[in-house]
Amino acid sequence: MAVLMKGAEVVSAMKDRLLKEVETLNAGGITPVLAIVRLGARPDDLAYEKGAIKRCEGLGIRCRVFEYPEILTQEALVGEIRKLNGDGSIHGILLFRPLPGQIDENVIKYVISPEKDVDCLNPVNVAKVFEGDETGFAPCTPEAVMEMLAHYNVDVKGKKVAVVGRSLVVGKPLAMLLLKKHATVTICHTKTHHIEETCREADIIIAAAGKAKMVTDAFVSEGQIVIDVGINLDENGNLCGDVDFDKVEQKTAGITPVPGGVGTVTTSVLAKHVIQAAKWSK
Amino acid sequence: MAVLMKGAEVVSAMKDRLLKEVETLNAGGITPVLAIVRLGARPDDLAYEKGAIKRCEGLGIRCRVFEYPEILTQEALVGEIRKLNGDGSIHGILLFRPLPGQIDENVIKYVISPEKDVDCLNPVNVAKVFEGDETGFAPCTPEAVMEMLAHYNVDVKGKKVAVVGRSLVVGKPLAMLLLKKHATVTICHTKTHHIEETCREADIIIAAAGKAKMVTDAFVSEGQIVIDVGINLDENGNLCGDVDFDKVEQKTAGITPVPGGVGTVTTSVLAKHVIQAAKWSK
Repeated sequence: MAVLMKGAEVVSAMKDRLLKEVETLNAGGITPVLAIVRLGARPDDLAYEKGAIKRCEGLGIRCRVFEYPEILTQEALVGEIRKLNGDGSIHGILLFRPLPGQIDENVIKYVISPEKDVDCLNPVNVAKVFEGDETGFAPCTPEAVMEMLAHYNVDVKGKKVAVVGRSLVVGKPLAMLLLKKHATVTICHTKTHHIEETCREADIIIAAAGKAKMVTDAFVSEGQIVIDVGINLDENGNLCGDVDFDKVEQKTAGITPVPGGVGTVTTSVLAKHVIQAAKWSK
Repeated sequence: MAVLMKGAEVVSAMKDRLLKEVETLNAGGITPVLAIVRLGARPDDLAYEKGAIKRCEGLGIRCRVFEYPEILTQEALVGEIRKLNGDGSIHGILLFRPLPGQIDENVIKYVISPEKDVDCLNPVNVAKVFEGDETGFAPCTPEAVMEMLAHYNVDVKGKKVAVVGRSLVVGKPLAMLLLKKHATVTICHTKTHHIEETCREADIIIAAAGKAKMVTDAFVSEGQIVIDVGINLDENGNLCGDVDFDKVEQKTAGITPVPGGVGTVTTSVLAKHVIQAAKWSK
């Protein structure tokens, strides 16, 4: 019988730890503050924002939303971010992406201060994740996978982990975080030959391809751990992951659901980063 | 019969291409210039420097050596690098590492201008390699491996490549360069369980562990390509790679020798980067 690796349990355990850290900060006169920077009002952004604010405020982190018109110029955005960088009362900055077309993310990413860059936009943090330097902030989603694995006592050391997907926001940084924990990491993608076989040979599969139910029964062998990072809509318009859960679950030793899995943990990692930034700001 | 993948052939082909690029630069009034920054006079550094100067000058690149005492302070080194950053007649800067104990590489790496950072010290370049952004400079050794594969028409697309070693200078950036070419990359290391098996299952093995002859017969299966990045001394004090060449060669479809393999190509990549930096400086 597969263990259903629910995000809620991880969130709850993290909450206990993070509340203590916020208490310590409060005792030192500091309230951690997250600035959420949003251009326009895309429904996806608003949904994530709502969840992030709820999670953060439940932990004693104050959130300030900086909403700008979608047509804001790049120059103006640079100016706004610089103001936030220079504002000592703000510890973390979350900037929603993708940015509108008039703004070049390759310019903006250098502007956001690495010390406040809680979702790993600045190349300084990207390089630190690559180097395994834990003084940087990893992107929240891959770190949520690591929290999930740690909470359910899945030791990756020496084990074969197949990461399906090589995106900059999940697959690649996740490979680096796993490597830091001494996993043997295989990065698979759309061009991979015999991808099913490669996944079957792994001890752990992490699906981060962004393709509904692509990890079928043919990918999975008995007793594996399967972590699903995907958030997609299925043919009936229901939320589903990258894993064909119903067909696969029986075989696995442990599997994360979608919804209610990794995605649930992401905002807890965001909160953890804001608290860390507040600690480092002292 | 295995193809012996010699570095000299790659160097010769690169020379033809690079000489043309230098000609074009010269026609525009530019002579590419490399600044070699060295603290003290470690024999390893001097040997590499000699090879680099010979290779570069054979391509029409001028080399200027900036030698400082081993006891140079960090502050002074920062000042010297800033001078080189600001000097428009210098296109590339090569700084020998490891640096002496009084100097923190984590400070220095941010100082060297990314545009002149021809061996990927600055996090801006590290992040670009991670992101697959080819406007950055990759470290010379892993790029030499890619030149080797390309020259011998080894297409990595979709193939299983086992990279043995996860160092910041070779294993990790090489994994990213391979991924950019659509390989399915497995990163193995000292903690990997069943490493022989993982390597046997690959199409291509790249040994970058820094351990003499560790890739034995048990790692290799018939018809593989084996690239050896190691440069070590064997029990008799002779140069050898990470691969036990004599025991393995017969099985492979192609294999690089040590010496005379990847190491030979490294300074050609360095020269390529200086030329690129000179082109971008226009």
